[in-house]
Amino acid sequence: MEQKRLTLSLRGGEVPLSPIRKLTPLADEAKQRGILVHHLNIGQPDIRTPQPVLDAYRNFSADVLAYGPSLGIPSLRESIACYHQRYGHAVQPRDVAVTVGGSEAIFFALSAVCDPGDEILVREPFYANYIAFAAMISARVVPIPSSLDNGFALPSHDEIARYITPRTKAILYISPENPTGIVYDRQEMDTLRELCERFGLYLISDEVYREFIYDDHVKFTSVLDLKGFEQHAILVDSISKRFSSCGARIGSIVTYNRGVMELVDKFAQARLCPPVVGQLAADAAYRMDPSYFMPIRDEYRRRRDTLVAGLTDIPGVSFHVPEGAFYLMARLPVPDAEDFCRFLLADFSMEGKTVMLTPGAGFYSTPGSGRDEVRIAYVLECPKIVESTQILARALARYNEKRTKG
Amino acid sequence: MEQKRLTLSLRGGEVPLSPIRKLTPLADEAKQRGILVHHLNIGQPDIRTPQPVLDAYRNFSADVLAYGPSLGIPSLRESIACYHQRYGHAVQPRDVAVTVGGSEAIFFALSAVCDPGDEILVREPFYANYIAFAAMISARVVPIPSSLDNGFALPSHDEIARYITPRTKAILYISPENPTGIVYDRQEMDTLRELCERFGLYLISDEVYREFIYDDHVKFTSVLDLKGFEQHAILVDSISKRFSSCGARIGSIVTYNRGVMELVDKFAQARLCPPVVGQLAADAAYRMDPSYFMPIRDEYRRRRDTLVAGLTDIPGVSFHVPEGAFYLMARLPVPDAEDFCRFLLADFSMEGKTVMLTPGAGFYSTPGSGRDEVRIAYVLECPKIVESTQILARALARYNEKRTKG
Repeated sequence: MEQKRLTLSLRGGEVPLSPIRKLTPLADEAKQRGILVHHLNIGQPDIRTPQPVLDAYRNFSADVLAYGPSLGIPSLRESIACYHQRYGHAVQPRDVAVTVGGSEAIFFALSAVCDPGDEILVREPFYANYIAFAAMISARVVPIPSSLDNGFALPSHDEIARYITPRTKAILYISPENPTGIVYDRQEMDTLRELCERFGLYLISDEVYREFIYDDHVKFTSVLDLKGFEQHAILVDSISKRFSSCGARIGSIVTYNRGVMELVDKFAQARLCPPVVGQLAADAAYRMDPSYFMPIRDEYRRRRDTLVAGLTDIPGVSFHVPEGAFYLMARLPVPDAEDFCRFLLADFSMEGKTVMLTPGAGFYSTPGSGRDEVRIAYVLECPKIVESTQILARALARYNEKRTKG
Repeated sequence: MEQKRLTLSLRGGEVPLSPIRKLTPLADEAKQRGILVHHLNIGQPDIRTPQPVLDAYRNFSADVLAYGPSLGIPSLRESIACYHQRYGHAVQPRDVAVTVGGSEAIFFALSAVCDPGDEILVREPFYANYIAFAAMISARVVPIPSSLDNGFALPSHDEIARYITPRTKAILYISPENPTGIVYDRQEMDTLRELCERFGLYLISDEVYREFIYDDHVKFTSVLDLKGFEQHAILVDSISKRFSSCGARIGSIVTYNRGVMELVDKFAQARLCPPVVGQLAADAAYRMDPSYFMPIRDEYRRRRDTLVAGLTDIPGVSFHVPEGAFYLMARLPVPDAEDFCRFLLADFSMEGKTVMLTPGAGFYSTPGSGRDEVRIAYVLECPKIVESTQILARALARYNEKRTKG
């Protein structure tokens, strides 16, 4: 009898490898050669995790580490609701689902509104994992192109409408934005709202960086600020960056839409519960005084300003000054930024040090876009950022010298 | 302009509500009336979490709770590999992916091998959440019916082959089995193996209860014991029951199939990492001496024997004596076991106490099957199990009295 062959899923083939992590083997090799690598490639803050979060782990005192409720422990759902109430929103604990990181929040939100073949609009460049989450449920991210040339401006209502098909189910955006640092202004939010109302779309709003805004004139608008829009709005969030607790894996979905919440509840029941001690830690974090964040924001502002000053001095580098988050998309004077990123790790060092950046193309799904761009995460102390820009300047000169000679 | 309406995903509609949790509101109301509820409905062990696990949380000492590697911290991958090596398997850390609970392990395994419309064979009755995970990726669980009447015997090769279509991608089984307590014997394992080889299917093996086997004559066969079958085998596992650490949310996938592992790696990168402190706790658990488990197995054996003795005394109750895990499927002398489970919580108590059971129908997808069955989880101390069977006997008499009068 002829035996049939094993096959793998097509969905698996559609999930991209993380552009943030794919150069990791080269970085490991550089370290083995004794080179110090400044990691500006990954959004891992170096900010100390707040003491109440660490204490929650250290003080865990139950005898049995049992399952918790699927939608999260009541105390945490309440403290997340309070967090939003402080911003003037009428969020109740029933409107909050605790998730395994912001990742699961996005995944559940997409799963609640998309079937196979459905489409999600996302302004490009975008967080690469959005493609992965969509691919895992056989849905598709449709990019709304924007460009560094005009400061990544959101296209007009009519331009965006051209990308909407009968399969479009939602617009997903993030503000402050990874990877551009853009904060959506009120007019852009109104554009998204009108599109969602006109075409019957959900607006999935990734607000994990909402506190990371560095200029007083920049006003953050939450999706929950859009009055009368409650049924469309799905907010996804995480404690990872806000409380420097990436390893806790605690996020949340906030929505007033009961139908969406009922599906999220079913998805949540299937995976039983989020990590229990991590929820206690998150609860402690949300119960801190909001003033906790002020020195952190000041520190990130200094880092941004330091990075911007350093990049301004490098010939041929252009970029949009980020208003928030801790990323900057820069165009480099090279034809293939990924090749340059490899060069930085494999063939270059300055006084025994180099820099790891993320190639920009991984944040675009339009073929060919972003090839001369890199994402720089300013998650290190200012002296290291100064040094990193010096390394970058020297490396660019050396790389282009080699390239024109070659 | 006419506005389009918001819609929810069809996949969400296909995900069932957890049969284990859907009576929870009635249990909560009973407790508010002052009634003590013995929870025999949920697989939450009352066994104390081992001290090394609790200590790992209490001793967490990093300053920054940072992301870990997507596939798990190296030390835990290594200790999981060692666990399997102790059973004589050549598992290396590269064959191990750490997941967010056994739930994510199952979800990633299904996602690696299924596209929308694809089918997974599972012997019925089965763990209800398998349907949920399949529905979330628009795949479908196809039941292989078995019955209490013949001890839930696995049908023959040829009978099972009738359920296989071009869309079938895998057979998923669990041994020892939730909800029946069945342990698959070598002959049954060979049947599954031959089917998988003949039809090009993966064999996804849920081995979370492998230590929970109570009779010396019952031999456990791991999917990793099947020589020459390595490319077909995907083992899913969890620390939840083995180390009474349900709330940690740490599981694993073990497979020698590099193609499957590459897709799991991509899925894992998308969700960044499993909970970091939970991984340290799991690592501590796997590094305990295996003798840790002996008194626990003895305790569960006593509980099983106590439950079996108690049920044997109740007229009209029939069941298959479980060989492992900590569940028993019982047929009750009632036409609608879910109605009886509601009666237990809403309308009955004995000396201020009652029992919560899980209606059996939720473990079947064949319509009408299991309606007179319940799943009983023997996760309480023996005196409470004795009391629970007394309550059950009294409640059945009362319920049927009422029913025949009504």
